[in-house]
Amino acid sequence: AAAAAGLALAMAARHWLRRPVREVLFFPSPPSCTEALLAEAEGPGAPAQPCPCPLPRSDCSLSRLLRRLLSARRSLEICLFAFSCPQLGRAVRLLHRRGVRVRVVTDAQYMGLRGSQIGLLRHAGIQVRHDQGHGYMHHKFAIVDRRMLITGSLNWTTQAIQTNRENVLVVEDAEYVKPYLDEFERIWEEYNPTNYRFL
Amino acid sequence: AAAAAGLALAMAARHWLRRPVREVLFFPSPPSCTEALLAEAEGPGAPAQPCPCPLPRSDCSLSRLLRRLLSARRSLEICLFAFSCPQLGRAVRLLHRRGVRVRVVTDAQYMGLRGSQIGLLRHAGIQVRHDQGHGYMHHKFAIVDRRMLITGSLNWTTQAIQTNRENVLVVEDAEYVKPYLDEFERIWEEYNPTNYRFL
Repeated sequence: AAAAAGLALAMAARHWLRRPVREVLFFPSPPSCTEALLAEAEGPGAPAQPCPCPLPRSDCSLSRLLRRLLSARRSLEICLFAFSCPQLGRAVRLLHRRGVRVRVVTDAQYMGLRGSQIGLLRHAGIQVRHDQGHGYMHHKFAIVDRRMLITGSLNWTTQAIQTNRENVLVVEDAEYVKPYLDEFERIWEEYNPTNYRFL
Repeated sequence: AAAAAGLALAMAARHWLRRPVREVLFFPSPPSCTEALLAEAEGPGAPAQPCPCPLPRSDCSLSRLLRRLLSARRSLEICLFAFSCPQLGRAVRLLHRRGVRVRVVTDAQYMGLRGSQIGLLRHAGIQVRHDQGHGYMHHKFAIVDRRMLITGSLNWTTQAIQTNRENVLVVEDAEYVKPYLDEFERIWEEYNPTNYRFL
């Protein structure tokens, strides 16, 4: 019991004493296979065969972004203008199945377009809310476990990831995370379906 | 002379010992009059009459963004998908006239649209380069005096500023500024007109 307590303490210390994440990701990210990364995150029940596709499995901005998201243990807030990247959609559904509390805010004009992941997220039981006004819900940020902010110019679309010049900043710093969390909660309440006006 | 040296030292100390800027701006920003702010920045030769327009002069996200930009003394790198906001365009031209080294990178598809500020910037003698490929130059960041990064979801358009949900993060931290400066220099070289292919 003492050893177990010691281990738990050591793990907690490692968690709390580690250096906060500070990362910058640039895109385009070359086409790559993220199957192994996602299958591993899906856990022991996932298929063990390696993916037969010819794409490289190397570390890239997309795989790094996926790893940051997959580190979520309790909560994930997502605020995205456009969301159509299948790998990122799969990661978000996986987190939801794992018991992470996922909430998504998106733009009404974009979410119905072909290829949007929003329908799949809702089908999986994930809460999604969208704007109802003029102007765009143009944010592109996510917050992992209320402590890590992922924000930038990148919409989560394959086109943006593979062909655009984009940036994503990862910050684990309460001074930046807090205002984004507050903004998320403001938008979440404003986009509450009970507030929709059917004009 | 000793007093002057002391004063210079005190000012330098104040500059170097001050807390680094860390700010988050959210939009939409309500319509407001930034005339006084810009006229003051234009210096002693600027008209002294107050602006007759009825818009409020209160502090807002746009005025804060303008103040951060106008703090530039030596250099300003701008990397923007869309740039059509007249106030921000005026601020950039003003900095150029003041002797700040301004460089602008933008997206070829957007820069020719009606309302774009890019033509006015070029007309003022500011260096502008643009992409020539497929995919968008979708960044939305600026770097002031090689020490302050301004980045987020916001394109510098009046529509985005006044009607969209947007975020801008201001960071004075070399660990974040450096990779964005490197990205700017990479793009600046890649978009060098000598590299254009006329296909």
